Amino acid sequence: MTPTLDDARDLDARDRLASLRTRFLPAHDDGLVAYLDGNSLGRPPRATADRLADFVDQQWGTRLIRGWNEGWLELPERIGDRIGEVCLGAAPGQVAVGDSTTVCLYKVIRAAVSARPGRREIVTDRDNFPTDRYVVEGIAGELGLTVRWIDVDPDRGATPEQVSTVVGEDTAVVTLSHVAYRTGFVADMAAITRIAHEAGALVVWDLCHSVGCLPVELDGLDVDFAVGCTYKYLNAGPGAPAFLYVRREHQDLRQPLQGWLGRLDAFDMAQGYEPANGVRSFLSGTPPVLAMLGVAEGVELVAEAGIGRIREKAAALTAFAVALADDRLAPLGLGLASPRDPAERGGHVTLRRDDAVELTAKLTEAGVLVDYRAPDGIRLGLSPLTTSFEELWNAVDVIHATAS
Amino acid sequence: MTPTLDDARDLDARDRLASLRTRFLPAHDDGLVAYLDGNSLGRPPRATADRLADFVDQQWGTRLIRGWNEGWLELPERIGDRIGEVCLGAAPGQVAVGDSTTVCLYKVIRAAVSARPGRREIVTDRDNFPTDRYVVEGIAGELGLTVRWIDVDPDRGATPEQVSTVVGEDTAVVTLSHVAYRTGFVADMAAITRIAHEAGALVVWDLCHSVGCLPVELDGLDVDFAVGCTYKYLNAGPGAPAFLYVRREHQDLRQPLQGWLGRLDAFDMAQGYEPANGVRSFLSGTPPVLAMLGVAEGVELVAEAGIGRIREKAAALTAFAVALADDRLAPLGLGLASPRDPAERGGHVTLRRDDAVELTAKLTEAGVLVDYRAPDGIRLGLSPLTTSFEELWNAVDVIHATAS
Repeated sequence: MTPTLDDARDLDARDRLASLRTRFLPAHDDGLVAYLDGNSLGRPPRATADRLADFVDQQWGTRLIRGWNEGWLELPERIGDRIGEVCLGAAPGQVAVGDSTTVCLYKVIRAAVSARPGRREIVTDRDNFPTDRYVVEGIAGELGLTVRWIDVDPDRGATPEQVSTVVGEDTAVVTLSHVAYRTGFVADMAAITRIAHEAGALVVWDLCHSVGCLPVELDGLDVDFAVGCTYKYLNAGPGAPAFLYVRREHQDLRQPLQGWLGRLDAFDMAQGYEPANGVRSFLSGTPPVLAMLGVAEGVELVAEAGIGRIREKAAALTAFAVALADDRLAPLGLGLASPRDPAERGGHVTLRRDDAVELTAKLTEAGVLVDYRAPDGIRLGLSPLTTSFEELWNAVDVIHATAS
Repeated sequence: MTPTLDDARDLDARDRLASLRTRFLPAHDDGLVAYLDGNSLGRPPRATADRLADFVDQQWGTRLIRGWNEGWLELPERIGDRIGEVCLGAAPGQVAVGDSTTVCLYKVIRAAVSARPGRREIVTDRDNFPTDRYVVEGIAGELGLTVRWIDVDPDRGATPEQVSTVVGEDTAVVTLSHVAYRTGFVADMAAITRIAHEAGALVVWDLCHSVGCLPVELDGLDVDFAVGCTYKYLNAGPGAPAFLYVRREHQDLRQPLQGWLGRLDAFDMAQGYEPANGVRSFLSGTPPVLAMLGVAEGVELVAEAGIGRIREKAAALTAFAVALADDRLAPLGLGLASPRDPAERGGHVTLRRDDAVELTAKLTEAGVLVDYRAPDGIRLGLSPLTTSFEELWNAVDVIHATAS
């Protein structure tokens, strides 16, 4: 059955999250038809602009240095706890915001490796996000470890079976992305975590394409460590700080970037580093207060929507995208590179054609913003808080015209 | 001769930078008498609030993902170059903004150590800023190196003579702060760098209390590496990203936090990390765009004022502070803990009394914001762009009343 514009409008009419779109700033760009890149950079919430202006005037400008003792210093953990509660299934005291995803990954993987002395391998997959792969290679290089690469199906991601075949008594850490950045494939976090643990290894999950889009149960699944970014589905702004999760039982492990904000009683400025209690010891430098404001706002919008409803809408959006693609784009040679099973899909859908790079450029010209992903992918990011079904329909209409 | 309020007003009348004070937001706090903490957290420039609002609406909100290819990705080096030109005596291509000072320190010290294999010592001083000491201890611990501590005169900082006595053929790196955070003592960067080099070691200078307050000549003095923060004299906002300087000849050294933004041709997302060319290989994660806007504005205000004139005013402010302290506060037992020679003083002046912690609390109550620095210091930060002589006079008046 051919999905129609009326279907799209009907889906929007029944969308319980539709009203939240008005909470984001509209683009001042008449040529913009559809923004299918909210999974790369989320749109700005209106309240974030207000928060920033108010913060500069009333907090930074008026409380000045006093602000640090009036709550700023606690923001990494306070916002972290909120992300943990709203998005991650994590009890308080295990999530902290600050640094980039890359720096967070470096810290938690180093800490994880230190918990398994004598084990010589870090397991990850060849299709993991580049920064994850580079961090793993760097750590392996400096510590004399080996990277054990899983060669995954390029349309999917690492499976429990694949992990089973590579982990063993030499595996220190298994680190994977929960949702594959290329295809949207959702890894089986429960099974893979269990398999890693049975081999005596620890897991580090990258949640960049999960957080704010589908529920995660870090505590419930016995996950050891996780990291994630906030500028995708949390809509916190370009380059907004990332978060890290350190399961309570691992918080005595040491990460190598010892800095003053991770020290016990930081403002004693005492001799000799001693780690702070809890997840705070995974902080290093001064918290990026201004940059965290967007994170605070983003997580509250997710809380208001409810991560369950967000997940439902993500599934509906990707299902509609798949139906439209099958009907209108497959005949043009644009094949689906994402899982057909909705349970295996995150918040984006990827199509594949050899001229993807040129097509992406033409789509940008035509006002449909998507992501090119090498070598042949066109990634349609569907952000439940900001993408409407009609927007998606219009996008596919333009893709159809452009690709014909 | 007793300095008077008229003297202060006369100094303000002749201050060529006085008009720049109007470029900063006033505090909405009627009880605030004086802000002598701009060297801990600089005040917000008016234009920064406008930049943030405009960026959210017109850039993030409208250009959306396209912004990355329209300049955002180059911001770390573009703003870095500008800091280098305006503040650091650094030719383009050697300074990059991003991460915290702590993370930057970790990267450059690791890179520096890697350039001197076989040498087993890192030299720093016992009174260096805490995060510097903790980073050095952490690196020494993980690499099996030794920290060689210089015990400095608590009223000053490391001297060339002291460095001479500790460096030798086992010294890999000498890392010190240019301006001591406690006393404002200005280290002899030229002599110490030369001494380190004569011993075959590299230098890493922390410029947190220098940048934007006094001119630095990194290229001219053959400095190897430097880091600095932007939320003090660059007024970039609480927790704004730091910068690192990597002398061109050292840019092939590797830093351990390998991330996608430091890779050659990052958006190819290719297999295997290969460092980008130039200082870019010292980047790791996604650049903190929103947080860098304040840095961009801050450095332009310094450029407009001129770092030479800023240094002159810093000298005049600290001289006036010393004269006032000698005249009105020394009789109350508040002794000077900063150098008397203006050439040896940065932008702040520290007084000492046993009850400094209680006195600082009382001063805060009375609307004079200063910094307590353990164990007995009251630090008066004098920010040339925002502090007036009358404000300083009023502050000392309140200190006098409070300390009597």
